[in-house]
Amino acid sequence: MSVTAAAGFVASGVHAGLRREQKDLALVRAVAPATGAAMWTQNRVQAAPVTVSKRHLAITQPQAVVINSGVANAATGAQGDADAAATAASAAALLGLVPEQVLVLSTGVIGAPLPLERIQKGLVTATAALSTDGGGDAAEAILTTDTKTKTAVAQATGFTVGGMAKGSGMIHPNLATMLAVVTTDYPLEPGDAIAFLRPAVESSFNAITVDGECSTNDAVVLLSSGVAQVERTPASDEALALALHTVCRDLSSQIVADGEGATLLAEINVAGAASDGEAKAIAQRIATSPLVKTALFGRDANWGRVLMAAGSAPFNGGYAQVDATRVSLSYNGTAVLVDGLPQHVEPPVDGGVCTIDLDLGLGDGAAAYLTSDLSYDYVRINAEYRS
Amino acid sequence: MSVTAAAGFVASGVHAGLRREQKDLALVRAVAPATGAAMWTQNRVQAAPVTVSKRHLAITQPQAVVINSGVANAATGAQGDADAAATAASAAALLGLVPEQVLVLSTGVIGAPLPLERIQKGLVTATAALSTDGGGDAAEAILTTDTKTKTAVAQATGFTVGGMAKGSGMIHPNLATMLAVVTTDYPLEPGDAIAFLRPAVESSFNAITVDGECSTNDAVVLLSSGVAQVERTPASDEALALALHTVCRDLSSQIVADGEGATLLAEINVAGAASDGEAKAIAQRIATSPLVKTALFGRDANWGRVLMAAGSAPFNGGYAQVDATRVSLSYNGTAVLVDGLPQHVEPPVDGGVCTIDLDLGLGDGAAAYLTSDLSYDYVRINAEYRS
Repeated sequence: MSVTAAAGFVASGVHAGLRREQKDLALVRAVAPATGAAMWTQNRVQAAPVTVSKRHLAITQPQAVVINSGVANAATGAQGDADAAATAASAAALLGLVPEQVLVLSTGVIGAPLPLERIQKGLVTATAALSTDGGGDAAEAILTTDTKTKTAVAQATGFTVGGMAKGSGMIHPNLATMLAVVTTDYPLEPGDAIAFLRPAVESSFNAITVDGECSTNDAVVLLSSGVAQVERTPASDEALALALHTVCRDLSSQIVADGEGATLLAEINVAGAASDGEAKAIAQRIATSPLVKTALFGRDANWGRVLMAAGSAPFNGGYAQVDATRVSLSYNGTAVLVDGLPQHVEPPVDGGVCTIDLDLGLGDGAAAYLTSDLSYDYVRINAEYRS
Repeated sequence: MSVTAAAGFVASGVHAGLRREQKDLALVRAVAPATGAAMWTQNRVQAAPVTVSKRHLAITQPQAVVINSGVANAATGAQGDADAAATAASAAALLGLVPEQVLVLSTGVIGAPLPLERIQKGLVTATAALSTDGGGDAAEAILTTDTKTKTAVAQATGFTVGGMAKGSGMIHPNLATMLAVVTTDYPLEPGDAIAFLRPAVESSFNAITVDGECSTNDAVVLLSSGVAQVERTPASDEALALALHTVCRDLSSQIVADGEGATLLAEINVAGAASDGEAKAIAQRIATSPLVKTALFGRDANWGRVLMAAGSAPFNGGYAQVDATRVSLSYNGTAVLVDGLPQHVEPPVDGGVCTIDLDLGLGDGAAAYLTSDLSYDYVRINAEYRS
């Protein structure tokens, strides 16, 4: 049910003609006055929809989100900004909103102009199709070359959190790798949403990697209809945080598992670092290392590569602290290195999941990262398809 | 001729039994009292030979270098340090030096103990084989899975700079990716060598990448015999700097061209950055981007990926400055983006070389980086071979 699992939301997904046959235009609308927040790609090159949506979000609370796949509307200059703004204005007119209440997200080819007329026609169809059952269609319409739709729902006492995401398919020069919309009926005041969204994203979408790339279009949006009959207390706030984390973590796992060419999902757990920041830097470095990822594809621990990556994790202009004589490392529970001494065992790496636990023996810093392996198919997907 | 091109050096390369059949032990010795310097991997996990050689270099001027392939002597604990020190001591006894005058370098499998006895026996053979013609054998003995030996020589007025390197083969868990020894007969005082070595390395070995990894064993050593009959002047110093740059750049290009699975050599030139540091960060980010590298393998410009990478180059805890509306980009001289506007042309990417010029339009910062593409063979080489 994705974004329509929570009460107070309708959605739809239609074919607007941006992609050959697939659905390519999604619309999500809060029926009740909503509050919301979003987190955006940190890339210095930001797509037009990101620029426009940020501007809208600074002015008022979001009530609807338009998402198109097929064209990223990035590197499109002033025309791109105008097209993104026109998309929001068209949707607003159809929905009886002001343009600033509409966020626009795009994913697809970089550098190509947005086919505005097709989108405007598609918005008419999408508006007519809005329904409380439309979450599945919407989740389908935001995909590019993902092989599966990605939805998640968490039920809490008295309220619901649901969401959809697309990610990790980058065939055709599709750099707009990750988009997610999460909705809830939990009551939030304007301005509250970001405080819940940020930690949930930090431990989910910001703790996964397929290839270490950072797109021009990445965005996560949280909308709250507030229609749930639940009294807000510190305990219920905590339940929301947990439900939000669950949904974001679930969606982000689905993205990694459906990563380009992925045959294995690896969980990198770093403990004993000098600080949480250093733990995250080290976990990220391991999770993006081509040598670690190709070894995982070969179902080979080859743990020296993990040590090599850990020792060269950029942090504060240098490398995060590692003392090789204190490091312990295990694969799926089998220790290969204890306090810096090799155990001369061959740990099991088979099946579709691998857990790598690295303890640096320096402090209390900890972090976890999800990643996939690096396979022939990753190369094929990203090399064979021409721009 | 590699390390024996400059007067005052002898070298040899022998089979000591660390690898199956190939030569695996190289010895380089200055006949005249030499001065020297070295630059080491910045990885926090450093191999025992790196630790021991650093200690030696802090005490006296280096007169000889022992290099073994097959075993990296990394992640080997206190025993590894003792083995590296014993290697230097054995070589010193054979050469009539004190142990601190000998540097030791290793490349090969991580976590395996150094076969000290074989190395000590091999050193006897290697010492007997030392000759002014031995540069080629030495260059051969330091290879692991490189497909070619890497040597370079620059002749200047009155003196010579020559060198050898190994790099980019990492089959079998060989993480010790890059080693180089450069020799010259140019006269240098103790302590001078590092001032010449650092800038040469910065613009060569530190400006290349195959997969963005940083090994536990990387090292570049410069030795000067000082026997050339040349009077040292500012002009001759400049000639040395140039010759050293030429040799280092030549060796580093050979490493990239022989990079694992490489089918294409790409030169990334970044200009117009806010600073040289930001230019280097951006060039490095582009040069290590899996999406850029797979596109190059597919002989596809797919230039949006370059923009994406440029916009997410880590710098000073954030990203280096990029303003998408000012960026110009060309492939092999064909402009695809001018002041942020797509030119809607399909630039030629064929053959084995590609030059990517990125002008950020922000300032005077510039940097260049050499990289290879990311191919099926990179994955095969690093996934199929088991540890």
